[in-house]
Amino acid sequence: MAQALEKNSVVAVIGSGAMGSGIAQVAAVAGHTVRLFDTRPEAVERAIAGIVKALARLVEKGRMGAAEADLARERLHAMRTLDEAKDAALVVEAVVEDLDVKRALFADLEGVVGPDCILATNTSSISVTAIGATLKRPERLVGMHFFNPVPLMALVEVISGVATDKAVADTVHATASAWGKNPVHAKSTPGFIVNRVARPYYAEALRLLLEQAADPATIDAVMRDCGGFRMGPFELMDLIGHDVNYSVTQSVFNAYYGDPRFAPSVVQQELVNAGFLGRKTGRGFYRYGDDVAMPQAQAEPAQQGAAQATLGGADPVTHALNARLRAAEGAATIFLTDGRSATQRALDEARPDTILFDLLLDPAKATRIALARADQCSDAAWNAAVGLFQQAGFTVSRLDDVPGMAVMRTVAMLANEALDAVNQGVCSTAAVDIAMQKGVNYPRGPLAWADAVGLRHVFTVLANLGATYGEDRYRVSPLLRRKLAANPEGARIHA
Amino acid sequence: MAQALEKNSVVAVIGSGAMGSGIAQVAAVAGHTVRLFDTRPEAVERAIAGIVKALARLVEKGRMGAAEADLARERLHAMRTLDEAKDAALVVEAVVEDLDVKRALFADLEGVVGPDCILATNTSSISVTAIGATLKRPERLVGMHFFNPVPLMALVEVISGVATDKAVADTVHATASAWGKNPVHAKSTPGFIVNRVARPYYAEALRLLLEQAADPATIDAVMRDCGGFRMGPFELMDLIGHDVNYSVTQSVFNAYYGDPRFAPSVVQQELVNAGFLGRKTGRGFYRYGDDVAMPQAQAEPAQQGAAQATLGGADPVTHALNARLRAAEGAATIFLTDGRSATQRALDEARPDTILFDLLLDPAKATRIALARADQCSDAAWNAAVGLFQQAGFTVSRLDDVPGMAVMRTVAMLANEALDAVNQGVCSTAAVDIAMQKGVNYPRGPLAWADAVGLRHVFTVLANLGATYGEDRYRVSPLLRRKLAANPEGARIHA
Amino acid sequence: MAQALEKNSVVAVIGSGAMGSGIAQVAAVAGHTVRLFDTRPEAVERAIAGIVKALARLVEKGRMGAAEADLARERLHAMRTLDEAKDAALVVEAVVEDLDVKRALFADLEGVVGPDCILATNTSSISVTAIGATLKRPERLVGMHFFNPVPLMALVEVISGVATDKAVADTVHATASAWGKNPVHAKSTPGFIVNRVARPYYAEALRLLLEQAADPATIDAVMRDCGGFRMGPFELMDLIGHDVNYSVTQSVFNAYYGDPRFAPSVVQQELVNAGFLGRKTGRGFYRYGDDVAMPQAQAEPAQQGAAQATLGGADPVTHALNARLRAAEGAATIFLTDGRSATQRALDEARPDTILFDLLLDPAKATRIALARADQCSDAAWNAAVGLFQQAGFTVSRLDDVPGMAVMRTVAMLANEALDAVNQGVCSTAAVDIAMQKGVNYPRGPLAWADAVGLRHVFTVLANLGATYGEDRYRVSPLLRRKLAANPEGARIHA
Repeated sequence: MAQALEKNSVVAVIGSGAMGSGIAQVAAVAGHTVRLFDTRPEAVERAIAGIVKALARLVEKGRMGAAEADLARERLHAMRTLDEAKDAALVVEAVVEDLDVKRALFADLEGVVGPDCILATNTSSISVTAIGATLKRPERLVGMHFFNPVPLMALVEVISGVATDKAVADTVHATASAWGKNPVHAKSTPGFIVNRVARPYYAEALRLLLEQAADPATIDAVMRDCGGFRMGPFELMDLIGHDVNYSVTQSVFNAYYGDPRFAPSVVQQELVNAGFLGRKTGRGFYRYGDDVAMPQAQAEPAQQGAAQATLGGADPVTHALNARLRAAEGAATIFLTDGRSATQRALDEARPDTILFDLLLDPAKATRIALARADQCSDAAWNAAVGLFQQAGFTVSRLDDVPGMAVMRTVAMLANEALDAVNQGVCSTAAVDIAMQKGVNYPRGPLAWADAVGLRHVFTVLANLGATYGEDRYRVSPLLRRKLAANPEGARIHA
Repeated sequence: MAQALEKNSVVAVIGSGAMGSGIAQVAAVAGHTVRLFDTRPEAVERAIAGIVKALARLVEKGRMGAAEADLARERLHAMRTLDEAKDAALVVEAVVEDLDVKRALFADLEGVVGPDCILATNTSSISVTAIGATLKRPERLVGMHFFNPVPLMALVEVISGVATDKAVADTVHATASAWGKNPVHAKSTPGFIVNRVARPYYAEALRLLLEQAADPATIDAVMRDCGGFRMGPFELMDLIGHDVNYSVTQSVFNAYYGDPRFAPSVVQQELVNAGFLGRKTGRGFYRYGDDVAMPQAQAEPAQQGAAQATLGGADPVTHALNARLRAAEGAATIFLTDGRSATQRALDEARPDTILFDLLLDPAKATRIALARADQCSDAAWNAAVGLFQQAGFTVSRLDDVPGMAVMRTVAMLANEALDAVNQGVCSTAAVDIAMQKGVNYPRGPLAWADAVGLRHVFTVLANLGATYGEDRYRVSPLLRRKLAANPEGARIHA
Repeated sequence: MAQALEKNSVVAVIGSGAMGSGIAQVAAVAGHTVRLFDTRPEAVERAIAGIVKALARLVEKGRMGAAEADLARERLHAMRTLDEAKDAALVVEAVVEDLDVKRALFADLEGVVGPDCILATNTSSISVTAIGATLKRPERLVGMHFFNPVPLMALVEVISGVATDKAVADTVHATASAWGKNPVHAKSTPGFIVNRVARPYYAEALRLLLEQAADPATIDAVMRDCGGFRMGPFELMDLIGHDVNYSVTQSVFNAYYGDPRFAPSVVQQELVNAGFLGRKTGRGFYRYGDDVAMPQAQAEPAQQGAAQATLGGADPVTHALNARLRAAEGAATIFLTDGRSATQRALDEARPDTILFDLLLDPAKATRIALARADQCSDAAWNAAVGLFQQAGFTVSRLDDVPGMAVMRTVAMLANEALDAVNQGVCSTAAVDIAMQKGVNYPRGPLAWADAVGLRHVFTVLANLGATYGEDRYRVSPLLRRKLAANPEGARIHA
């Protein structure tokens, strides 16, 4: 295990915006003497005042002792010139996302800092390798990608460029741990871990909308109430801003040479075209304002009649759901989606009254369930199935009969992308699950989730999506195939 | 049903080129007071003179009464300044295809027109949403995409941007109907309906040429004489101009993020590289000029010997053909192509003497048939089959043994793209068929044609093309899969 | 057969860099009066001096008579102005790769040369059609693509643009033959033959590295010692320079509209980002320098115990290998890779102790063999198999269990691309094999190699790669499918 930097060593932070301030705060609280720099000195003063206020709030809320806050405050110093970084053990750069600006800054820093000083960049989108290319000693440059707001978000992606010394990355990893963060190692590669693996969360939702599976409010509710995600994809995109999200999507898409996995959507493009950029402009997928009510998710009307249906399938989700439903025999047969449409499955299994449900994070406690019905399904069977779920306390939202529904296809694609990142040496299986939970608040790591649903089921979902759409986008990660070939029944990602 | 604008309300047309003049003529004939504007006043005078001449020609040909023409003429007025649009119920913009120019124009118009005036853009390639983004009230902007020549072409694509008010689109649709046009609703999306759904007409022909299926003259003759298209794809591209057609292809391809369905062809690129832009430069796929004869389509020499062959297949096209041929048993077996090559089918069905024919619009009346022979097929069987068709009055053109031949794969891909447009909410099934018949003169709507051939057969053709080429380009639309899953035997698009 | 240009006719060469000098030397040795031009007259003098030195070295080495060298020297003349090209029968342009520069040059030349003079461009990457587009008589422009170093490399790609006269291309072809070269005809198309068909040599290696199959030194050793390639892909890319190779890759990728076959790799991109451009910068995949040892390829430790295994498979490679190994029955079963991973094959055939070997150019003489083991394979079986090969004199290198291994997937993809070039009319099957042997020193033409391995086996490898990866990239060329459909058992490319 590598050693963290000494607790009382000097950390210089360059750039005093939201990210730089947050990093300075975290380092100061962790015990370091922190020097904060900005090209505009008044910005540094403002940033330090902001940190002082933030610390005071933590004290107020009882989450930090007053003495501890005072000490942190005393460790914070404004830097007037870069020269003052000369005693730093670590310099973290958090300036504008511009390769030339970052290169020029590090060139200056190389002339200032000591031979053992570690240089770190907080870039979220530029190759750490490229930033290091113009350094005399690129081996001591590493990415240290924090998430916003830095004091609250535990994830730090520690990014190694082609030239980065492994010992440097290990020291930064250990230091981030000492600061109370959850660091993960990753290779310099487009999107690193989070911004790559999270793409399907947006992409699948946009595809569902494009294919008219449901309106944004319904899909958002399903992702929240069935999938356990903190925010639905459409409200989240509205929060991020469509200009920002579209631009990240395009950048990752181009960096992977047009891999259809990462293709943007004409739906996003049109919102950007319209200037409907989300919350910040008052309109995105939703309208925002004092007098605007958010639209309600679709919900099936309450069924009064017979409420029975057969629950098919032997997977753990269906099993847990059965315990809650106590379903008996009924006209309809209900399955967890396996990536086929209900209509296709009704044909394949010669069972017209086929109804599918979407993946639930917690079948015992979920408040909503999403159902899709085969085009062949009778109204009576549908109504009975809806009633069964309603009696068990579910709000039932209907999705049009798209393959893989919403949560299931999203989770399958998240896990698939995570496995490709692992297969390509970007990070470990443990790292990717930590990254998605700590960096974007997923309720469960995609690989742990795939284990819980069953790798075989995830494979089937992806294979059926691929067969239905006929697109490379839904190709199965070679690592998933390999795990299942090596151990057809009991394959797991995490031991 | 929405009401059309009042017959005698004022319509302002901005831009007096071919499209603007045509729109002004149509609106004036329909009863509106028309104000025509151009930044160059002399252009307006020229345009009005042109319309007057056009009306005179219609009177000459007996297609309009002299009084009616006089009245239309009197309703036409040149506008000196945009201010004169202030009493307009509708303004139609038909200026240069430049987003900034259009935005500036509509900003000016917003300051002039009354609160109920509808603003329409005749753009063929720019997002209506993007044009509306800088308006104070984007909800009243709608696309009104006419086709050239406007007085003759019935199609109007009524395009709703993200912000467009449905009532505004409905009024414009009703107004276009009142003008004697065939309007269709569509969502603002790259290529709208026609310029998206028509892409395979060029793309499949270019692929056939690339793979050396036949020369341009033969493929053009097959598309005309077997498929019933007014112009073959190569002569059509020569007419449009390869610079223009290549640029539209690239624009749609980029707008759909490199979807291989829309990929341009190196064949087009090389013609553009050569400056062989088609008719306008005297050379494209063909040479043009007084002393240049157009090349003849390939035709098999007349067969004298035995002329019998077995007609396999139970599809409606083969059935209709059989009525004309009165085929008896013979060495060769002849099938309508199902997307496999003849060579592959000969192997699959252990029948070396396999010959395929291409789709015919009207088997009873077609003057030409395209045949492909398996590499295993004997000369005797081939000659007998050729003779059989020749005796029934067909000219026989041989295509090399490419999968799906020419008309069949083109029609299947047109229908497939049409279904994707429907599945993605761009337009209705009725709209897409009207659009392709009225906007680009197809002899039959692609969806009605797919119904006639049988959706199962179209599916099989696409699936076999996909299996042969292994490219996403030939993926089957999810909507086609769904229709067949819901109703394996009797699926139809149109009731 | 077309006639070569007269032996004593005048050849003008424009541009006196490495390529121009080489062309001038070859033409002079072949008997032509050669006029060499450069915009910097001193460059011409330097070039002629260089040629004189090169001829002297050839005489020294006994590869040319002194008299012959003297005569060649006397035939070489510096040109002061382009006007001196007026008596040329052939002008070969070898100036900078810039379309505008080349067009301007040929426009000047058109005003100078006689009506029968042939104009040739040595471009490696620009459309010959585009260069010809601004000529008055584009029919006499042809590509004459030499390889570096020109006096040693036998290949000349004779490129016909859209407007090129067939007779002109035939004359240039015959002339190149008369000069002792191995010319091949090709159509003007991105990458011509060599720069297109060679892409998989780099692309598959980069994919193997991305998926962590082995380190560069091991993959290079496998490609050399098993595949018989003169240089491994990584050392070759280091020699070419990653900036150059990445740029060619991007250019071909864009020219084929993002066809995933030609997609660059993030691995290359990161080396370019790092400035690790290969030999010329002292670092690429490898480090270069006096004090740096090249890394060793991985080799399995010597096995002492039982050394037996069953050799499965009936293909010619396994057959030849068996003659060398004299394998008896053993716990492990060893197969030539068929494009499935060992793990997948172990499952499919219910044979846990499955081990795969990579393709060998010459099973009788190869010094190394690459093996991959199924995840299910026991250590005992693995060790016994390794021992068997070691006893037969092989160094055993282990690749991680990636589908298709290294040589096999590379050769399959080379042959596949070659077949697509043929299918699209770029060149003949003979031409592509000559081009790859004479232009990039492959030990065997890809199509002859595919014949030797068996077209069925190559097909199976590609189909299995396609099934595993689910990417269009591994699609099978329609021409390969057709050959196998026409003749399932005995299909061959070359008679």
